[in-house]
Amino acid sequence: MRQSELFTKVSRAAPKDEVALNAELLTRGGFIYKNSAGVYSFLPLGWRVIQKIAGIIREEMNAIGGQELFMAALHDKRYLKATKRWDVGVVFKVVSGGKDAGEKEPGFNISWTHEEIMAEIGTKYVSSYKDLPFAAYQIQTKFRNEPRAKSGLLRGREFLMKDLYSFHTSEEDLFKYYDRVAAAYQKIFARCGLKAYYTLAAGGDFTASNTHEFQVVADVGEDTIYLCEKCEYAENKEISKLTVGGKCPKCGTGIREEKAIEVGNIFPLGTKYSEAFNLQFADEQGRKKYVVMGSYGIGLGRVMATIVEVMSDKSGIVWPANVAPFRVHLLALNGANGDAAYRALQDEKIEVLYDDRSLSAGEKFAEADLVGIPWRLVVSPKLGTKVEVKRRGENNAEIMDIKEVTKKLSENGLLQ
Amino acid sequence: MRQSELFTKVSRAAPKDEVALNAELLTRGGFIYKNSAGVYSFLPLGWRVIQKIAGIIREEMNAIGGQELFMAALHDKRYLKATKRWDVGVVFKVVSGGKDAGEKEPGFNISWTHEEIMAEIGTKYVSSYKDLPFAAYQIQTKFRNEPRAKSGLLRGREFLMKDLYSFHTSEEDLFKYYDRVAAAYQKIFARCGLKAYYTLAAGGDFTASNTHEFQVVADVGEDTIYLCEKCEYAENKEISKLTVGGKCPKCGTGIREEKAIEVGNIFPLGTKYSEAFNLQFADEQGRKKYVVMGSYGIGLGRVMATIVEVMSDKSGIVWPANVAPFRVHLLALNGANGDAAYRALQDEKIEVLYDDRSLSAGEKFAEADLVGIPWRLVVSPKLGTKVEVKRRGENNAEIMDIKEVTKKLSENGLLQ
Repeated sequence: MRQSELFTKVSRAAPKDEVALNAELLTRGGFIYKNSAGVYSFLPLGWRVIQKIAGIIREEMNAIGGQELFMAALHDKRYLKATKRWDVGVVFKVVSGGKDAGEKEPGFNISWTHEEIMAEIGTKYVSSYKDLPFAAYQIQTKFRNEPRAKSGLLRGREFLMKDLYSFHTSEEDLFKYYDRVAAAYQKIFARCGLKAYYTLAAGGDFTASNTHEFQVVADVGEDTIYLCEKCEYAENKEISKLTVGGKCPKCGTGIREEKAIEVGNIFPLGTKYSEAFNLQFADEQGRKKYVVMGSYGIGLGRVMATIVEVMSDKSGIVWPANVAPFRVHLLALNGANGDAAYRALQDEKIEVLYDDRSLSAGEKFAEADLVGIPWRLVVSPKLGTKVEVKRRGENNAEIMDIKEVTKKLSENGLLQ
Repeated sequence: MRQSELFTKVSRAAPKDEVALNAELLTRGGFIYKNSAGVYSFLPLGWRVIQKIAGIIREEMNAIGGQELFMAALHDKRYLKATKRWDVGVVFKVVSGGKDAGEKEPGFNISWTHEEIMAEIGTKYVSSYKDLPFAAYQIQTKFRNEPRAKSGLLRGREFLMKDLYSFHTSEEDLFKYYDRVAAAYQKIFARCGLKAYYTLAAGGDFTASNTHEFQVVADVGEDTIYLCEKCEYAENKEISKLTVGGKCPKCGTGIREEKAIEVGNIFPLGTKYSEAFNLQFADEQGRKKYVVMGSYGIGLGRVMATIVEVMSDKSGIVWPANVAPFRVHLLALNGANGDAAYRALQDEKIEVLYDDRSLSAGEKFAEADLVGIPWRLVVSPKLGTKVEVKRRGENNAEIMDIKEVTKKLSENGLLQ
């Protein structure tokens, strides 16, 4: 797309009301707009990144048999009442609007989580062991009244989440699937350019048994993990009996402590929700049993923010190619016309942002570095018919024909 | 996908709590799940239909320069206070959850509409006439506390909407774009299999001037339109001075009255929202002026419901090919193995639902008719290596080789 037509602009100045690096860079680059503390809108560049992350998640969820659905966000109070969670502090409740039409008691909350909804839907379609196992997921908004929403997209009061739910006849079957989800999650984070450690963690609001988190090492992380660098065994400090410098229980190497961001988590739910909603199946002998459930979450905005936190440099963001809003940033400098190069890239189906605006070369370079698209292409009068090609985050530029460029980019697997 | 793996099932019985045909058929087919009156979840088959509709909408919005974004759903009260709409009856307000943490006054509402948010975002990026025009859209959830939510997906308290907003230097420029959006809307509805009439309508909550609606003739419609069948001129009865049997003001033909469903609407907003949020630009002489806005909506669930209302028959839904959850429904009858045909269709990238379950032929036919996938293919012992091919809604079946079938389907433009 032509940058002259993009309605957002890059801003030189840091926003005054942000302390988190992810929020600062994403705001300056025109990726997000802050509506309230912890509440953001995704602008066109940011929405393209979210859609790239969503596409990767969908592919990996479909590959393990996940069936995509889209559950309601407005939840009758019967759902959280059934699991005694209606009065949890982070739940946003809903009352009707008109001055006179106001309800005395809230009748709905907005989606804090969807375990209850999913379990109730399950009761409609599960009656026999033959109906199990299955798994369903969605990408939908969650709302949580976080008291400390100062970390940009890392901790929002409204955020997009992929939540997968699985349904099984036994714990054994659940844990078999649990391992498949863990492997799929590792693929997702790797494709997003993140190194995530599979970390043993405590139960929480959702389950009493141990759960697992996917933790990305980062100074701004709210979590602390004990980590073995050699075999990658990790535990959340909250539940860990390991000690810094002590031996890894798996391989004997020394344990170190790291701050980390939780980018995903997986929960064995057991029968908590199936008991609350009477989600039962008849086994092969006709005996009624409660369905065994698991749930598995990834915050899309948090993944985006984590990428920015761990992969930016002093000039701006450095997007991994798979999640970048565009693959190529084409800059036309000093009055040069980049239309021919723009068309050549489009003809090869390479996603390109074309900076066709009347700004100085210095301004265009600075803005391109901030926005962080993987490949920067320059046309200028002194280059003639050639193009200068540079990878974001690297210093060396090459000068080549546009045909060589498209060949190079497709060899690098950067086609759409 | 194999139907044995789909977690939803078709139900013979009509739901007890639905009066609308769309809700009855979509519930029985396993497309939707009712969480509360006017609040539905989209199950895998239904979500596939919504994604098809969304894909069509995105293509046509992008074709007229719309830039996709995704705005927050949790709105600080400053937004609706700015346009004096905070106390409108259909607005759902939000209070925090904990028994002790409860706010005395709601501080947020959940998205009734996004004009205010969009206008505020505009102030960040518009300063000069050079920044205009532009248009941005999203597909996002809206929440409205409808007192009468008995029409299934036709009138929900929570619903998915595509809303486009355009920004201009003048009314003249707005109306030029308004006509382009109207043309794009006609393409969208036609691609969804709907005949929609472009209908003059009153202003509403959003604007004082005349607006336009896209109306699909249907007995269950809540609107009444005066329509000229010859030139397709139409007016909403609410504002019309036409009379039944009277002459069409455009072509002189007789006017008739029809019940109709509003599937889309377009509003010239003028400067109402730019005044409320001080959204100004400097013109070529440096004079400050308010930006002129338009807004344009399509309800995705309502489009889906309208298709069901106007295109079902006594056996069930008849999906138009472009929005069907799958293009082909492959039924393996009486113990026949359909795996080879299934693979052959998948190899040709034809979206297929493969009924590999152990049900009687009669049950499979009845369920396939209810679900309404455009092409039904049958394999059975008596057909040998041949396949029976029938189009949903037609009576004649043909018997042919699977290779002929894939050729026929691609000739009919039914590939993915």
